[in-house]
Amino acid sequence: MSTGRPLLIVAGIGNASGTGAATARAFAKGGYRVALIARNTEHLNRLVEEISGAGGEAAAFPIPEYSYTATGDVFDKILSHAWPGGGSIELRVALWNVGVNVFGSFLNVTEKDIQSSLEVHVTAGFAFSRKVILAFKENELDSAGSRGTLLFTGATASIRGNVFTSAFAASLAKEFGKENIHVSILTDLSLSRRGNAAEAWKANPDLRLDAESIAKSYLYLVQQDRSAWTWELDLRPAHEKW
Amino acid sequence: MSTGRPLLIVAGIGNASGTGAATARAFAKGGYRVALIARNTEHLNRLVEEISGAGGEAAAFPIPEYSYTATGDVFDKILSHAWPGGGSIELRVALWNVGVNVFGSFLNVTEKDIQSSLEVHVTAGFAFSRKVILAFKENELDSAGSRGTLLFTGATASIRGNVFTSAFAASLAKEFGKENIHVSILTDLSLSRRGNAAEAWKANPDLRLDAESIAKSYLYLVQQDRSAWTWELDLRPAHEKW
Amino acid sequence: MSTGRPLLIVAGIGNASGTGAATARAFAKGGYRVALIARNTEHLNRLVEEISGAGGEAAAFPIPEYSYTATGDVFDKILSHAWPGGGSIELRVALWNVGVNVFGSFLNVTEKDIQSSLEVHVTAGFAFSRKVILAFKENELDSAGSRGTLLFTGATASIRGNVFTSAFAASLAKEFGKENIHVSILTDLSLSRRGNAAEAWKANPDLRLDAESIAKSYLYLVQQDRSAWTWELDLRPAHEKW
Amino acid sequence: MSTGRPLLIVAGIGNASGTGAATARAFAKGGYRVALIARNTEHLNRLVEEISGAGGEAAAFPIPEYSYTATGDVFDKILSHAWPGGGSIELRVALWNVGVNVFGSFLNVTEKDIQSSLEVHVTAGFAFSRKVILAFKENELDSAGSRGTLLFTGATASIRGNVFTSAFAASLAKEFGKENIHVSILTDLSLSRRGNAAEAWKANPDLRLDAESIAKSYLYLVQQDRSAWTWELDLRPAHEKW
Repeated sequence: MSTGRPLLIVAGIGNASGTGAATARAFAKGGYRVALIARNTEHLNRLVEEISGAGGEAAAFPIPEYSYTATGDVFDKILSHAWPGGGSIELRVALWNVGVNVFGSFLNVTEKDIQSSLEVHVTAGFAFSRKVILAFKENELDSAGSRGTLLFTGATASIRGNVFTSAFAASLAKEFGKENIHVSILTDLSLSRRGNAAEAWKANPDLRLDAESIAKSYLYLVQQDRSAWTWELDLRPAHEKW
Repeated sequence: MSTGRPLLIVAGIGNASGTGAATARAFAKGGYRVALIARNTEHLNRLVEEISGAGGEAAAFPIPEYSYTATGDVFDKILSHAWPGGGSIELRVALWNVGVNVFGSFLNVTEKDIQSSLEVHVTAGFAFSRKVILAFKENELDSAGSRGTLLFTGATASIRGNVFTSAFAASLAKEFGKENIHVSILTDLSLSRRGNAAEAWKANPDLRLDAESIAKSYLYLVQQDRSAWTWELDLRPAHEKW
Repeated sequence: MSTGRPLLIVAGIGNASGTGAATARAFAKGGYRVALIARNTEHLNRLVEEISGAGGEAAAFPIPEYSYTATGDVFDKILSHAWPGGGSIELRVALWNVGVNVFGSFLNVTEKDIQSSLEVHVTAGFAFSRKVILAFKENELDSAGSRGTLLFTGATASIRGNVFTSAFAASLAKEFGKENIHVSILTDLSLSRRGNAAEAWKANPDLRLDAESIAKSYLYLVQQDRSAWTWELDLRPAHEKW
Repeated sequence: MSTGRPLLIVAGIGNASGTGAATARAFAKGGYRVALIARNTEHLNRLVEEISGAGGEAAAFPIPEYSYTATGDVFDKILSHAWPGGGSIELRVALWNVGVNVFGSFLNVTEKDIQSSLEVHVTAGFAFSRKVILAFKENELDSAGSRGTLLFTGATASIRGNVFTSAFAASLAKEFGKENIHVSILTDLSLSRRGNAAEAWKANPDLRLDAESIAKSYLYLVQQDRSAWTWELDLRPAHEKW
């Protein structure tokens, strides 16, 4: 039986106003220690302060760039981090929430655009998932029968960037389900057909997903019994035009 | 603002050991009054007693057959039922969980088989949904922004019987989402490829969905914020071979 | 080895300007005898004359209504029809092209609407498919390795009416593929999101599918080698907005 | 009006026994000049000789590796190639048929595996598609209303390698359909669930797709009228167990 505090890692918190940040807040409130990975140190520190101010435990792990090596390094740093509150941790949930580049017209995409997009979205995500799954394999089962939950945010604003994530998540879910590791992707269907949406739309939670609502759904996925896991959860605002 | 107790209607409780019964128990524990519709009076009464014995409120509504008229009639009876505990009710959740006939080989299916299957699965389900949605339209919004949730069980054991339900649910979800009525179908992927599964399989919750786990998922769907609704929730046991 | 002339049956020719009629013309030109089923005798006769005038062989089989019994009866009549040109026939291709009712708002659909829609789209289609498959089972293999091809038109103008056809076709394709019977559904994606489209749209083959183009696709499906069958063919005009 | 001979480019011909080679043969027979790209010079030359021996016109374009630059270079070389038969050419069809690496277990995949797989399957495919579409934009419309057809082979043996191709093809189809450029992916569903299939299976065209049957389907896709284009064609052998 593990005696460590449960740990959530979130990779990708943007400007601390979206899904990554809302998930960090929700899990911190639920008793998780939260390790935050992002490129922007200022946003990282602000979110750590906010969570700490609300009585949670969070720590910032800036990353210079999302590459295979840098992602692995920051992961190792997180697992060996000495938390001010003391005691051990156990990684139970990890969220890959790294933003998708939306390219313009295909003919304008350069070799460099492709390569840097692949490095961030595929290679670094691959390195992250590998480290997470290796860590989960050491875990005991929790009360729902799981060794841990690996989550992906699959906003479909850009089909080019996203479908790979979905296929990748499916492939991991298949391979590791039988080892009681839960892999799941949450897809935001409200973004899917609205690449150029106006600010008015972004502000209306009946037309776009609210970040807190997404975070609640991640909490639900983590709590699912092993007998009934969801590997792809589609969310759509009530007033969405399909 | 409504002052009525929230009501759940479940149509289809089989032998009281499956999804319909587990959902009734879970919502009764969560403070809902529960109205149960089924053809078998014995199973109905047993489940009502069990829920009442556990401190919940349940009432039995036997139906002679799932036809358009009988379904409408039993619905009206439920809405005008005088509950022993007194006070008014407000229909907030309705579950259509009527079992799917699994036909054998296509060539052996008779005209009568088709017609009775259509009457139960399509015509009666249609009548049920219509009554439910008309009732929801009178409701106030709840704290998650919803007027009510109409749920379907979409076990995919028989693709013939089920796909219609899925298409029907999608069509209602589209039409009534903008009126803040949440329509959702939960699909049991563990059954989908195992029509002839052995008893051993049925007893193993790592290979098939556990009814209580399904019921928890219905509770989750009912609590989703209006900003992030799921209209089709796929569940699959951890050890499922895809 | 069969010595009969190949026969195509088309059920549903509307006003003789759409998919059913274009398919009849294309197969007649390709050497098939063509049996046409429809409710409107005038349209039937006009199309028979047109095909005959162009050197093809066609015969009209009016049906009073699309019910289980009437569909079976007209099918038997076709198989025993004495063709003016003499010689025997062998049913090789059958197309179920019966139009889908587009309902208005769900709440206005009556019990009678549902029942008559189910009779036409499900029960009669079921009777048709059963007769076709039983006839195919008596056939020799053709040069592509097939005993016959059962085709469905799956226009998606009305998701309510159509999804059943798609699921039904899939189910038949699975069950009878191993008996070398090819079942396939052709889906017109141009209609799918345009229920209320204007006349201007209907006249523009870059925005909607042209009936002759659909007929060519049916010819292709019929000629596919058994090693590489398509069971669902999606068509979409070049300028379609997805 | 163009007076050039139609040109097909095939990238990826493996050992000249599969889809790429069968497609080259079929189009050569249909009057196309055929330019073949592959890494293995011996296989390339053997196929060129075979096609020439059968009265067709083919030329070999070896490529050292599938990188962005090498792919662009070989493409330019093809367009400026002086054909022995003289006269000009017009690129009308291009097939990206570069084989998919099947990785083993996720945890054993290295950083180098990912990067080289991405270079071949994504970056080089991107470079190829870009050159093809730029060339098509200069073409006149053919009799079916098309400026050219860009084809992808989407064997689903490895979901990891393939889904990207499918998403990429969809994205191009959407963007360039309105410019009358047809983009289509052909998916071999017989491979999809049989990563470890035995030789016996590979030799049985009722269980796996036959390369010549696939080539016929590519010919069909190229001939589709612009009014009814398919962007994803699923093929499945008659005896496939779904």
